[in-house]
Amino acid sequence: MTSLTLFTPSGVLAKAQPLRRAAKRLTQLGFDVTTDADALAKHQRFAGDDATRLAALHRVADAAPSVALATRGGYGLTRLLDQIDWGRLAHSVEHGTRWVGYSDLTALQNGFIARHKGLAMWSGPLACEDFGRADDDGGVDEVTRDCFLEAMSGALEAVGFRESGAPRGETPFDGLEARGRLWGGNLTVLCSLLGTPHWPKVKGGILFLEDVNEHPYRVERMLLQLQQAGVIDAQAAVLLGDFGKPAKSPLDGGYGIKDAVAALRSRTRTPVLAGLPFGHVRTKVCLPVGATVELYVQGREAIVGWQSDPRLAHGAHDHHHHH
Amino acid sequence: MTSLTLFTPSGVLAKAQPLRRAAKRLTQLGFDVTTDADALAKHQRFAGDDATRLAALHRVADAAPSVALATRGGYGLTRLLDQIDWGRLAHSVEHGTRWVGYSDLTALQNGFIARHKGLAMWSGPLACEDFGRADDDGGVDEVTRDCFLEAMSGALEAVGFRESGAPRGETPFDGLEARGRLWGGNLTVLCSLLGTPHWPKVKGGILFLEDVNEHPYRVERMLLQLQQAGVIDAQAAVLLGDFGKPAKSPLDGGYGIKDAVAALRSRTRTPVLAGLPFGHVRTKVCLPVGATVELYVQGREAIVGWQSDPRLAHGAHDHHHHH
Repeated sequence: MTSLTLFTPSGVLAKAQPLRRAAKRLTQLGFDVTTDADALAKHQRFAGDDATRLAALHRVADAAPSVALATRGGYGLTRLLDQIDWGRLAHSVEHGTRWVGYSDLTALQNGFIARHKGLAMWSGPLACEDFGRADDDGGVDEVTRDCFLEAMSGALEAVGFRESGAPRGETPFDGLEARGRLWGGNLTVLCSLLGTPHWPKVKGGILFLEDVNEHPYRVERMLLQLQQAGVIDAQAAVLLGDFGKPAKSPLDGGYGIKDAVAALRSRTRTPVLAGLPFGHVRTKVCLPVGATVELYVQGREAIVGWQSDPRLAHGAHDHHHHH
Repeated sequence: MTSLTLFTPSGVLAKAQPLRRAAKRLTQLGFDVTTDADALAKHQRFAGDDATRLAALHRVADAAPSVALATRGGYGLTRLLDQIDWGRLAHSVEHGTRWVGYSDLTALQNGFIARHKGLAMWSGPLACEDFGRADDDGGVDEVTRDCFLEAMSGALEAVGFRESGAPRGETPFDGLEARGRLWGGNLTVLCSLLGTPHWPKVKGGILFLEDVNEHPYRVERMLLQLQQAGVIDAQAAVLLGDFGKPAKSPLDGGYGIKDAVAALRSRTRTPVLAGLPFGHVRTKVCLPVGATVELYVQGREAIVGWQSDPRLAHGAHDHHHHH
């Protein structure tokens, strides 16, 4: 059985039920599920005070389960970044632990790969949101579940999507081939690492970005910050995930996320593709943050693939397909 | 007569009336007011497309009025930063132009002082918001008006405030004396410059910060980013202005802006004072961004002062007090 630990590194869980439901579903999917002792801790808006959450992170690393799945995001990892014993986390990854989550987990993942060049963590679902949803609220998304199971078994070696940003009838990225380190995640959280020691200085990489509840002008400001900081131009490609449907302002005058992306595209020669099935949406793939990946585009069909790697596809005995 | 030009570098003006009202009031206050030709331009949510707004900025610089007062903030300067002819702006400042505004203007001011060590721009009111408000909506704030008039005449040499962050009965900053370059402004806009060529690498400075409509956890994330980037520790002092009354989340559990500031204070030895009368509030002082200032604290009373400087207090013939 594949061991899986649920832990809460950032925001408090408002209720225990989604966590219980997620644990039950993940057990049914074949995992040997453990819930960290402080997964339901509470201090203000956090899942326990900083010392509690830091200790939980290290405790999970020391236990080195096959899968370390965060229960939710929120805000909280920023407070811990300067105190995390990154070597302890690296030790767990080297022993096969796949750390999984997104949103606030972007800080953990990118802070980690900033220090450990050969290692990766997984941008993927969160337990409560993706496995803890009640059946009458849609239950578990099948694509999210199947992709997660494949990734956690080590079988997942590629993710495909249809590029959605180019004008109808145009295929500006046809024939594109790129190879580089995959990194990124939530745009706001990623930008909050800029200038700090937790920023991964990836050159020639494949940068993926998503966000939610940010007005398009704020998305644009962050994209332009990355561009002005030289980050975008230094990448082999940028992959945009979902950016939600932010509330519009009466002053927008038609301005929207497409204009924000256009503002970026007009300022860089780096290919900026849209349509990656990732973000604060029901259907999301798993992506190895920190792994070297290859991007191929044919027409509008894009594929991000990675080679089997002992640290990405660890433990052949775990390679069950549960779906 | 002191010449004053109104220009719109960022967001579109929804209505012309506040601009007309501001022009009229500023005329009554003794300024020779000119409104830039494109102050009411509109392109999506912007005051004209990028070329229009950039041209306006350069046109104002070339005209070099005594005062160049922005009509409003919003979002838009980020798009122009890489294209601004900073030397043209410096030329106007050297000839006595005082550029004034706040919020999105933070990008212009700090991008400017990043390149011109001996020069300053003014963090201060915006025409529509501060001088264009209808009488039945409160009209013009007297403190804001008087401080602006003093600053624009060159007479203003200090701003005082009561430190409000320390617990009741405590005066942890009593006796504090510091001297350094004043910089900063809107926290979100300032952070959007981090890592770019528009970031002023000020060491030993006095950093002032304000923000609005940002949840305290977002304020904290930005403050901790500055701390983790080494920016806070490198300053002689940090002065916090107003951070509004952001909407609370049911998950906050009592967490608020005080906790965000406490999270910063616990991580730095740099004095972090609160209570600077500046921000998205009616009453705001004028502050010379880029000038060398001195900070003195007695008990809870803080004073930020600066020496008369040919570029800050230009044109002795303009030293009228209108209030």
